[in-house]
Amino acid sequence: MPEFGQIHPPARLLMGPGPVTADPRVLRAMSAPLIGQYDPAMTAYMNETMALYREVFATGNEQTFLVDGTSRAGIEAALVSLVEPGDRVLVPIFGRFGHLLAEIAGRCGAEVVTIEVPWGEVFAPEQIEEAVVAHRPKVLAVVQGDTATTMCQPLADLGAICRAHDVLLYVDATASLGGNEFRADDWGVDVATAGLQKCLGGPSGSAPITISPRAVEVIEGRRHVEAGIRDDGDEARGRRIASNYFDLAMIMDYWGERRLNHHTEATSMLYGARECARLLVAEGMDAAVERHRLHGAAMLAGVQGLGLSVFGDLDHKMHNVVAVHIPDGVDGDRARAAMLDDFGVEIGTSFGPLHGKVWRIGTMGYNARKDAVLLTLAALEQVLRAEGTSPVPGGGVAAAREVYAA
Amino acid sequence: MPEFGQIHPPARLLMGPGPVTADPRVLRAMSAPLIGQYDPAMTAYMNETMALYREVFATGNEQTFLVDGTSRAGIEAALVSLVEPGDRVLVPIFGRFGHLLAEIAGRCGAEVVTIEVPWGEVFAPEQIEEAVVAHRPKVLAVVQGDTATTMCQPLADLGAICRAHDVLLYVDATASLGGNEFRADDWGVDVATAGLQKCLGGPSGSAPITISPRAVEVIEGRRHVEAGIRDDGDEARGRRIASNYFDLAMIMDYWGERRLNHHTEATSMLYGARECARLLVAEGMDAAVERHRLHGAAMLAGVQGLGLSVFGDLDHKMHNVVAVHIPDGVDGDRARAAMLDDFGVEIGTSFGPLHGKVWRIGTMGYNARKDAVLLTLAALEQVLRAEGTSPVPGGGVAAAREVYAA
Repeated sequence: MPEFGQIHPPARLLMGPGPVTADPRVLRAMSAPLIGQYDPAMTAYMNETMALYREVFATGNEQTFLVDGTSRAGIEAALVSLVEPGDRVLVPIFGRFGHLLAEIAGRCGAEVVTIEVPWGEVFAPEQIEEAVVAHRPKVLAVVQGDTATTMCQPLADLGAICRAHDVLLYVDATASLGGNEFRADDWGVDVATAGLQKCLGGPSGSAPITISPRAVEVIEGRRHVEAGIRDDGDEARGRRIASNYFDLAMIMDYWGERRLNHHTEATSMLYGARECARLLVAEGMDAAVERHRLHGAAMLAGVQGLGLSVFGDLDHKMHNVVAVHIPDGVDGDRARAAMLDDFGVEIGTSFGPLHGKVWRIGTMGYNARKDAVLLTLAALEQVLRAEGTSPVPGGGVAAAREVYAA
Repeated sequence: MPEFGQIHPPARLLMGPGPVTADPRVLRAMSAPLIGQYDPAMTAYMNETMALYREVFATGNEQTFLVDGTSRAGIEAALVSLVEPGDRVLVPIFGRFGHLLAEIAGRCGAEVVTIEVPWGEVFAPEQIEEAVVAHRPKVLAVVQGDTATTMCQPLADLGAICRAHDVLLYVDATASLGGNEFRADDWGVDVATAGLQKCLGGPSGSAPITISPRAVEVIEGRRHVEAGIRDDGDEARGRRIASNYFDLAMIMDYWGERRLNHHTEATSMLYGARECARLLVAEGMDAAVERHRLHGAAMLAGVQGLGLSVFGDLDHKMHNVVAVHIPDGVDGDRARAAMLDDFGVEIGTSFGPLHGKVWRIGTMGYNARKDAVLLTLAALEQVLRAEGTSPVPGGGVAAAREVYAA
């Protein structure tokens, strides 16, 4: 076989919908030597990681930790641990990732009910309440920010609706957490999950999760400790969770005081996840959200300043990503390739009805920065010109500068 | 909340059953900047990773890639994708990890049949064949090396037995791969999975997997492409796999030419997994196994030279770990703590019937090295003396040196 060289990726500024360029401090943390999984230094790092993510999720939930896998691993752990076959799950869909929640809930054996709004819109709380009343689900599963449409679903009223109707509220905050307001306790969120590769500034591969006491009770009601490490006091309860890897009752025993062996914690990813949260908490969560608001506003103004039009309801756009209509006559994929090959800047396309129709440009995590915004706009102007269109010369950068000057 | 410092783990030589000290070159590879998941540089790294793990597993299987999670994620992906509810799965149990396979298969809805030998022994092929004939399972699921007992189950005859009886052979090679002979194709293994944190010299968090064409056919027979990215030609087949995250049919579409979006590949872990395999393949798989044999033999001779007795059938011991009886009168946990606190050397205890009865000492991955072996033996001698026993002065190091001199 051919000899492959060492890892040496090309220089890239990742300005798509994620993954984005990781904070170098996070990558440095990940290069630290390993320690054993029950080393007191390791369990201290685990406890610190729990404390840090409580701040990130704005919660007092004891059960706040990491699921070892990508953000979708966190989603599946939440749903498979909450949902038993035959349970009803309501999923409001306003983009691609609601379909994903519905799909995962379906694989858990749920009776899935969906409601939809057109891409580019979000739900009013009344629409969701009406569906809750009509369908009486066990779980309401909703995405906060859908990168496919760039929309951010308001959540503040959903917890009260869910509690009034004895429904558990699950939120997929993968794309939004850290860059848009999120308040697990104030909003009555029962379980929320995320990933590192968006506003948290790390690589994909670890899924922070937080679980409210009433969701813990549901999960503990399905506790079956694994054969081989079971104590006499560990009687099985309820219907066993269909996954071992995603059994949150067992994962809580691993992160909790019993430290019952489950998986072998992905130490390097834990180092990275801890550093992502440590940097955000040191900055202040409100300051981090404001940073994403500012650079997102600058990018939005910038693409508009180039003469481009923007997709979706701007009152409900996430701070950290914008979808731009590809102008008539422009080959969207060729333009993205030119951005990447000639300027080292990655931007994205979208899925489903928006595939090939929009570019998605992110300003998140480490790349929620002025130089990243201005460089991207400068490069995009050149690429648009090469594609035969007539962007306003300097219009993108000037408009972004105005946002920064305000 | 308190301010937490940056990641700064204590210096540790990890000589337990794994995770072990990662190769610094692997950690360096993991600190490389991220690139986008469809960047041509990224898909090239994915293809190279597939090619490298074909060498590691000694297979021509096209479907050889990574599952994003710890080694147990690989096990669950294999079993949930192969096994439908009601299918019979036969698990020969010779330690803790057979129980894990049985548990995971049970959660997949399998009718699980187990056979057992006492801890410290392995199965003769005839015992397994007899059970195959008696129970006619769909899948035979077997661990190659069980770190709980240090035993290495011979596999060379099992593929032929399975093919003769139309059974799929799944092997969990987490603890053994890279340090003990493994030949997926020659042995007729249908699916094998592993992790990085043992003989591969990396951190936990990525699970290499290889899948034979006949296992691919079974998995493809259950192909249901996810809503939202489905094409018209993608009709659903067979009974849907119960997990989205572990749906190997979808993961094959992500790693294959279609590059259908599934998870967002854990880029840093992929960099690490690729480097683990790149270093092993450059060394040569036979040379890597021989290195583990040599340093394992030195450690075995060393602990015996200290006057300690060893657990289990030495003819079937894995190269990379040895279980040592804790001498009478020695407090095993206190001695392990002294190894860690005073010498920075981690060794392990075991599970179940061996908990508190043995220490497990590993020589694997980056720590399959002479200096690591001699340092561990030197420290252990001091700790045994402090515990009030009378180890042969210099006897451990001398015996190990003899192995190296031979």
